[in-house]
Amino acid sequence: MCGIVGYVGEKNAESILVNGLRKLEYRGYDSAGVAIINDKGEMNLSKSKGRLSGLEEKLKQNPLQGSVGIGHTRWATHGEPSDTNCHPHTNQKKTISVVHNGIIENYLEIKEFLTSKGYEFYSETDTEVIPNLIDYYYKGNLLEAVMEATSKIEGSYALGIMSVEEPGKVVAVRKDSPLIVGIGKGEYFIASDVPAILNHTRDIVYLNDKEFVEMTKDEIKFYSKAGKELKKDIHHVTWNADAAEKGGFEHFMIKEIHEQPKAIKDTMASRIVPGKSISIDNIALTKGQIQNIEKIYIVACGTAYHAGIIGKYVIEKMARIPVEVDIASEFRYRNPILSDKTLLIVMSQSGETADTLAALREAKAKGVRVLAITNVVGSSVAREADDVLYTWAGPEIAVASTKAYTTQLITMYILGLFLAENKNTMTSEEIEDIKNSMLTLPEKAEEVLKQKEVLQKFAESTYMQKDMFFLGRGIDYAVAMEGALKVKEISYIHSEAYAGGELKHGTIALIEEGTIVIALATQNDLYEKMLSNVKEITTRGAKVLGLTVEGNESIEKTVDSALYVPKVNSILLPVITVISLQLLAYYIAAAKGCDIDKPRNLAKSVTVE
Amino acid sequence: MCGIVGYVGEKNAESILVNGLRKLEYRGYDSAGVAIINDKGEMNLSKSKGRLSGLEEKLKQNPLQGSVGIGHTRWATHGEPSDTNCHPHTNQKKTISVVHNGIIENYLEIKEFLTSKGYEFYSETDTEVIPNLIDYYYKGNLLEAVMEATSKIEGSYALGIMSVEEPGKVVAVRKDSPLIVGIGKGEYFIASDVPAILNHTRDIVYLNDKEFVEMTKDEIKFYSKAGKELKKDIHHVTWNADAAEKGGFEHFMIKEIHEQPKAIKDTMASRIVPGKSISIDNIALTKGQIQNIEKIYIVACGTAYHAGIIGKYVIEKMARIPVEVDIASEFRYRNPILSDKTLLIVMSQSGETADTLAALREAKAKGVRVLAITNVVGSSVAREADDVLYTWAGPEIAVASTKAYTTQLITMYILGLFLAENKNTMTSEEIEDIKNSMLTLPEKAEEVLKQKEVLQKFAESTYMQKDMFFLGRGIDYAVAMEGALKVKEISYIHSEAYAGGELKHGTIALIEEGTIVIALATQNDLYEKMLSNVKEITTRGAKVLGLTVEGNESIEKTVDSALYVPKVNSILLPVITVISLQLLAYYIAAAKGCDIDKPRNLAKSVTVE
Repeated sequence: MCGIVGYVGEKNAESILVNGLRKLEYRGYDSAGVAIINDKGEMNLSKSKGRLSGLEEKLKQNPLQGSVGIGHTRWATHGEPSDTNCHPHTNQKKTISVVHNGIIENYLEIKEFLTSKGYEFYSETDTEVIPNLIDYYYKGNLLEAVMEATSKIEGSYALGIMSVEEPGKVVAVRKDSPLIVGIGKGEYFIASDVPAILNHTRDIVYLNDKEFVEMTKDEIKFYSKAGKELKKDIHHVTWNADAAEKGGFEHFMIKEIHEQPKAIKDTMASRIVPGKSISIDNIALTKGQIQNIEKIYIVACGTAYHAGIIGKYVIEKMARIPVEVDIASEFRYRNPILSDKTLLIVMSQSGETADTLAALREAKAKGVRVLAITNVVGSSVAREADDVLYTWAGPEIAVASTKAYTTQLITMYILGLFLAENKNTMTSEEIEDIKNSMLTLPEKAEEVLKQKEVLQKFAESTYMQKDMFFLGRGIDYAVAMEGALKVKEISYIHSEAYAGGELKHGTIALIEEGTIVIALATQNDLYEKMLSNVKEITTRGAKVLGLTVEGNESIEKTVDSALYVPKVNSILLPVITVISLQLLAYYIAAAKGCDIDKPRNLAKSVTVE
Repeated sequence: MCGIVGYVGEKNAESILVNGLRKLEYRGYDSAGVAIINDKGEMNLSKSKGRLSGLEEKLKQNPLQGSVGIGHTRWATHGEPSDTNCHPHTNQKKTISVVHNGIIENYLEIKEFLTSKGYEFYSETDTEVIPNLIDYYYKGNLLEAVMEATSKIEGSYALGIMSVEEPGKVVAVRKDSPLIVGIGKGEYFIASDVPAILNHTRDIVYLNDKEFVEMTKDEIKFYSKAGKELKKDIHHVTWNADAAEKGGFEHFMIKEIHEQPKAIKDTMASRIVPGKSISIDNIALTKGQIQNIEKIYIVACGTAYHAGIIGKYVIEKMARIPVEVDIASEFRYRNPILSDKTLLIVMSQSGETADTLAALREAKAKGVRVLAITNVVGSSVAREADDVLYTWAGPEIAVASTKAYTTQLITMYILGLFLAENKNTMTSEEIEDIKNSMLTLPEKAEEVLKQKEVLQKFAESTYMQKDMFFLGRGIDYAVAMEGALKVKEISYIHSEAYAGGELKHGTIALIEEGTIVIALATQNDLYEKMLSNVKEITTRGAKVLGLTVEGNESIEKTVDSALYVPKVNSILLPVITVISLQLLAYYIAAAKGCDIDKPRNLAKSVTVE
């Protein structure tokens, strides 16, 4: 879970690498470093623990000259954040430098082997074996040595490599970690993600696993692992880099919370049209195939997993197909029961989540059809799945996901209706009702955003809490999970979600005088039951914020304070309810003075298992 | 979630009621009270907030005379624990007294109605409407008034009722809350559970929903809700009341932890025999029916739900039947997809868990076959299910479940093998291997119990923590959930379980210098992956206790301290691993000085939704 960049050309490499790393800081930010080869063929390194600004400071005092270089921003896995563990890593002779995103699983074995050959190691990282192994195989051709070395290593990697023996060159390769190549005029780039190079070029080549690149300012060549030269397609990217800026907001997160009405609208566009059947681009499933589906798995991580739990409610209710939702890192090792009547849905904002990608590959290997839901066109899950349903949320920069989640929910409704339509499990009136209600969601979301002052006030009275609970029954329980995760991620308060009826089977022991509980009671058929559960905890001293739908003012008899969301078809309520919880988490973290967009220990896109 | 008792006869009612309540304290203990009618036909009440000992103190100073009475020990739902909210409740004129276990759902409506008729109310409870409604309908016959009143109330109830107008009589009725009747010589009893009256009689009548009892010292009569007299069977109970005593241990919980080798052995007895096919008493499922099963639901609450999650791993692996595990309070309102190819398994130690019982009834109403797993013979779930598989753990008194959980796991293995045998999804060698390994579990459990000093020492260094995390992958994740729940229940530390691979998708933000994490890495195929996850958190300052199998001493390179369980077939490891976690939770709570057997806010058997 790191970001890497690389450059060959005629410009000053230092600023290109640092600016690229800035755009990749969402992938990790506990240390950063660059290696640059100057005109004399000397390789110089600069590294710094902590945020990128530390590295910039160092470079200001000791600038590095040269127009060939690689850079790295790190999220620690092996070895704590420190100058020594920071990338780029070099071989013992300091002739070869490497930046690496991924995990080398057999590094201890390789380390032992190289140690027996007289090599010494200085860091705790898995990465340091790579430049030394390349050195071991180096016989005058860097590309060949990299091919030889990567044939010995197991695990995941995106690598950028330079050698002072071949000073005008960068070699790169990927396996299970993302890497793209930018094609400029007399200059070439590598990067973990497109935004890093968008200021320089919009012509992108996507690398597949075990494909190699060898680039100098004059020429770029692609090779298969067998050493065969490859012809790769160039994609022209139309993304607007400015769309990823903060606008007038203090943080990306609050900006992205406010972008939800538009993101929801965009994601429904052309798909949800009154009087027309649901239309899904990029989905080739036939009616026959749909009728064949006997079981759906939804596999995802973190926030996307929570969207999957809502998906289970929605798809089971609308299309009456049994749905099992699983955490991606668990799914793979469960030996799940799959057949040709199974559909696997994977969900990942970035489309690069390692666990999710691995689940996709596992299922495909067993002949299961895979539908991907992702926010990034051309991402790994999008390229490898049979069908893709994109969320059109635009780039999400804040680590804590907001608009990606609500648009994932929208795709769950679209898919539920699509399956229902093809399986005739709902009447066309029922389908039209829900579609019409969906089309009001952008304006309802705007209404919820107007409540931010109430939530800010509540947050300012509770931010010093150490613990917090979110309760809900049915679909509200799934929303409660996402609310609790948001609070955890950005405010470091130990919050936890519970099913309203389950709390009394153990966890109610944690409720004491003054414990803060957020109780969701938006669903009419569960309203009274939920209030009974709330009484069980107010009796024991909990302070409860109740969240329900306009018209349920009777909740005020039971809770300490109440908040209302506008009415909409009850199955759609999670989309707007969660916005209140996002705002709550945001204002709690703001009151605590936390680093909201880059919470400690977290990275935006988790590309290691 | 309360306990009620009642007595008519010639002995001193006070001591019989108080001794009965003592045996029911596991059902609730935030207040207690009795009402007794003396020889002059006067009714006197004594009530006290807090533990039963408070009531005993009061009665010592002001004893109540008489040989007809009712008593109650409370677990608050409506209205906080207080003398006023304490049972028995009376009508305004204080002529009728009532003890009640359950929740009256329409009490506000009834209260309004009675208020309009001039009645006044003094408590916050739902119960107080009952004696007043009986009073409203009373026209010289208590039984008839009770029948009339209960026809108007909605919700769940077990009721014991007396009136000074008919001083030698107790009337009782139940709906969705447990109530049994004891038949003595010249005396009769009612109680929520058998142990309350075991010192007086072993002849028991089980009441069904909406059945009424009218008893005087001379005669007992049973009626249907239509007023028709019923003939009821008398069951002779062979339970040993002494088995529920603490023996030499400080708490029931630690005693019950130590009873696990025997409980595990008992539960396997006659079912797991080398060379013979799995034999399950009380299960009438035919081979044809088993081959017809396409989906299994396991529905339970709390600890039993965690046993169900292990059940999913076990049954899917052994019998390749898809299993869905659901929280009982969620299952009912999900509108689950059920068919005649579905088998529902409900699991409840007490067999009276209201949410689980309701799920059972919901499924039966839809024509689904139900298999119950319970520890209490003759309990509601046992009586209402099609098939029963008993855990033979003996009475469990401590609120935090231990031996019920491990024996529930044993039933999951028995069932998995039984289904595999009937579906031919395992070879007989594979089945024999697992059976032989199962038969070693009692002695392996003994070995784990010997580690208690290590765990006590670890507990004494960590009990002051406010938060704690339990990590595991695969089947270890399910065990981690149970470990976290044990710590929550008895030590009030906010502990939470996470899938090893999922932590980095958000919750890792909570890890800081010194955070205590218990990492389970017992499964060989997940061992390396789990250690990678552990590195992610030790890098961020977590202090990790690693739990693995003997032989995996390499774990010590990664964790701060390590604990080993003996080797056994890997799918069986949860049975012994969890014992370490139970001991850990126990010693943490002991170090904190918590009331281990009766943790705050919790009751043993949750008979309200």
